[in-house]
Amino acid sequence: MRVAVIIPAAGTGRRMHQATPKQYLCLGGRPILAHTLEVFENLPEINEITVVAQTKALEFCQNQIITPFGFKKVLRLVPGGKERQDSVYNAIKALQRQDDYDLIVVHDGVRPFVTPEEVRRVIGAALEHGAAILATPANDTVKKVNHTGRIQKTLNRQDIWLAQTPQAFQAPIIWRAFVEAYGRDFYGTDEASLVEAIGIPVFAIPGSVYNIKVTTPEDLVLAEAILALRQQSRTTTRDRKDQP
Amino acid sequence: MRVAVIIPAAGTGRRMHQATPKQYLCLGGRPILAHTLEVFENLPEINEITVVAQTKALEFCQNQIITPFGFKKVLRLVPGGKERQDSVYNAIKALQRQDDYDLIVVHDGVRPFVTPEEVRRVIGAALEHGAAILATPANDTVKKVNHTGRIQKTLNRQDIWLAQTPQAFQAPIIWRAFVEAYGRDFYGTDEASLVEAIGIPVFAIPGSVYNIKVTTPEDLVLAEAILALRQQSRTTTRDRKDQP
Repeated sequence: MRVAVIIPAAGTGRRMHQATPKQYLCLGGRPILAHTLEVFENLPEINEITVVAQTKALEFCQNQIITPFGFKKVLRLVPGGKERQDSVYNAIKALQRQDDYDLIVVHDGVRPFVTPEEVRRVIGAALEHGAAILATPANDTVKKVNHTGRIQKTLNRQDIWLAQTPQAFQAPIIWRAFVEAYGRDFYGTDEASLVEAIGIPVFAIPGSVYNIKVTTPEDLVLAEAILALRQQSRTTTRDRKDQP
Repeated sequence: MRVAVIIPAAGTGRRMHQATPKQYLCLGGRPILAHTLEVFENLPEINEITVVAQTKALEFCQNQIITPFGFKKVLRLVPGGKERQDSVYNAIKALQRQDDYDLIVVHDGVRPFVTPEEVRRVIGAALEHGAAILATPANDTVKKVNHTGRIQKTLNRQDIWLAQTPQAFQAPIIWRAFVEAYGRDFYGTDEASLVEAIGIPVFAIPGSVYNIKVTTPEDLVLAEAILALRQQSRTTTRDRKDQP
């Protein structure tokens, strides 16, 4: 079985209010993207990684991250598109020229805290069902709010989940989903929504609240805290069950 | 103006897998509930606090938290009901006998990281509009998932917000909302949903990702991390803008 991973990291970091895009900001002294790539580099189940970077950042990404950190599984570095979906599609097209992957896994470049176990569970579910994503049930009451800030409606939180990544798909499924999405100009905020749109079942695998997407300065502070706790749990001998 | 706060803390902590309910677990050496109460005790805008505890924990709550930590604004300690809504209703009925509050603010006993500024903003909005809650826009793609784990639908995340507390209401509004809810046996997962149900507008005020509800062991670890960072930001002189 061959598993290819796509890491979209072409965001411009508008929400971070910084000149440096968020994926290149440092977390515990290393770029966020390097933390993320390390998880997949070290997983034996993963055969190769395609990183998607902004066109103007391709060289930076290669010379400051992929080469110095020695990520050997990163076989491809492709330029991003206008939206996230365009970026992932660029990677899918680059992979399609190879045509010999069983499973394609997409994971945000700015989700550095995914664990090997979580990746394995999503891969396992995608092999079994065709398509699976990591997600967490909503803990809070969920509201529909209009542009003035007025609450329109309370949703039934029991069936509401917040999607994360990885999102894993048998290769023919994600290819068809993207081709059909572009055929009718459909844009989604994640890959699963494109697969859902062609009527193929996607399954949600329970993830962890630690698997945050680092998009704001507030998230970065939270990320430093999660990293500190994780390092602490690695270097102490106390019970690690509840550690991140 | 008189502002009364209700702190529901009658949960049994089923999701925490511990004998001690979550509100009494320690965070940085102090019970979570004590952290939460401290915020309101120290806010000049708040006149009094009603704590709702499990019937069997009333004495514990008084003798281990309210008395030793010297919370002078906690004027009432009332027994909880079957559901959260029943607990809050018990407190509302206890307050109603007084009849001289302008604003009633409800805040989860297990949300220790709410800031004075956030409480003030929600109070201000409730004074202006009648009803307001703290909430955060969904960062992740939001899915409707059925009982088998299959995704049914992707919601438009642009208008999805995750409700937090405080939730603040002009007193006659919350009273009417609760009376009408019990009149037709309606249960909600937060107070705002009862007010929405009687057609009164409720406004969402943008909150912070740090204002987490501590309900699982995982949340408790995250809470320790947030607390550590907050203490660090208080004791150092570096820029505090991005600190929790």
